[in-house]
Amino acid sequence: MKIVCLGSGNVATHMANAFKDNGADIIQVWSRDLSNAQALANETGSQAITDLKAVDKRADLYLIAVKDDAIEKVAKGLKDINGMVVHTSGATGMEVLQGHKNHGVFYPLQTFSKAQPIDFIHVPLCLEANSEENMSALQLIAMKLSPLIYEIDTNKREILHVAGVFACNFVNHLYQLSHQVLKKNELDFEMLRPLIMETAVKVQEALPENVQTGPAVRNDKKTLLKHEELLKRMPHLQEIYKNLSNSIKKTH
Amino acid sequence: MKIVCLGSGNVATHMANAFKDNGADIIQVWSRDLSNAQALANETGSQAITDLKAVDKRADLYLIAVKDDAIEKVAKGLKDINGMVVHTSGATGMEVLQGHKNHGVFYPLQTFSKAQPIDFIHVPLCLEANSEENMSALQLIAMKLSPLIYEIDTNKREILHVAGVFACNFVNHLYQLSHQVLKKNELDFEMLRPLIMETAVKVQEALPENVQTGPAVRNDKKTLLKHEELLKRMPHLQEIYKNLSNSIKKTH
Repeated sequence: MKIVCLGSGNVATHMANAFKDNGADIIQVWSRDLSNAQALANETGSQAITDLKAVDKRADLYLIAVKDDAIEKVAKGLKDINGMVVHTSGATGMEVLQGHKNHGVFYPLQTFSKAQPIDFIHVPLCLEANSEENMSALQLIAMKLSPLIYEIDTNKREILHVAGVFACNFVNHLYQLSHQVLKKNELDFEMLRPLIMETAVKVQEALPENVQTGPAVRNDKKTLLKHEELLKRMPHLQEIYKNLSNSIKKTH
Repeated sequence: MKIVCLGSGNVATHMANAFKDNGADIIQVWSRDLSNAQALANETGSQAITDLKAVDKRADLYLIAVKDDAIEKVAKGLKDINGMVVHTSGATGMEVLQGHKNHGVFYPLQTFSKAQPIDFIHVPLCLEANSEENMSALQLIAMKLSPLIYEIDTNKREILHVAGVFACNFVNHLYQLSHQVLKKNELDFEMLRPLIMETAVKVQEALPENVQTGPAVRNDKKTLLKHEELLKRMPHLQEIYKNLSNSIKKTH
């Protein structure tokens, strides 16, 4: 299978490498920035290009992994191709690709960072395609990377993306706020890392509403007040403490 | 080493079992409720009691693992003992134990649930004691359970506890809210579990502020508005979405 990778950021890098490791041939990497294209091209043994007109017409898959608001423009820059064009975005509809006969979405429901290698066995792949044949083709491609394959339409993909913001982006932000509390008091973030892991491990089997702990769910007023008092010099954190404690009380 | 365990909830159960597995002798389990005391006593091969007057005077360690507002009362019910009296609470000062000659705090900075076994190797133990000798004694005891030993006074322990509320209790609540979003749209929480794990794994090496992703940190206004729109029938979640997105923008 021949793949052209459009984009050279985190998602593009992880996916291009995963495809390559699973036997696909990454023939080109396109980016507006040559040095970025070149870096990923070097990793995957492919050609770096910066002009969409130079895209190879014979690829089986055109993988668009660029910023959301650039997807449509990149897709429209691909001319006279017959292979499947997919984007990888959770927040973008499939319809932005409709100029192409064969198109779909290949959304990895996972968080990627450049430094951290990721095993695609743990990456749910959410697929959408503009025909049954293209869905079957995408499924066969996806199964080379991960056993976690879901058929998800544009509406549901947007929902998954919002849910992911709560479960990943907001969660990481809370990790950061906890770090802020520790730092202000000369305590090391290292101390919290085992707790962070265990909290995630717990909901791998259980549902979160069944394993909620802490002062808010117990309605332990004394501790809640004490914590608000401890945060009085960090009013921003105090406000979030109150909001989320109230939200816990409301939903239990 | 002979231990009397006062309490029979999650923390008491995990700690009593961990001590037993590491060669200590749990001689009694006290609880107000006999059947609860009996259940843990059976697990640890010890005697169940419900009257504090029946507590064995010859134990080396009296481990108070009861609800925060019951600690002082239980401590005062222990008469004529010479062993070390410790509580396990993050939110309670050491001074509630000051009626006892030898006392301290043995706070496991971890989340416990009855169903989930836990390896104490991953449990940071935060110790405080009323004398250097008692601190040394507690350290020797703690090292049997975990290599993660910290000397932490009452003020810092309270800070750790607040930070833990952010990194564990509030995080779990966000998992729950993401589940709510999925459920309303007939999507399975299972799909998010790999993302939840990876989010926790990422900060085991990195600091959270260095790995923040998502629309808020990119200030991707289009996606932020779309997400708020998607949550309009869940006003409670919409509000939290706005609050936490603003908090991310403010801190980056």
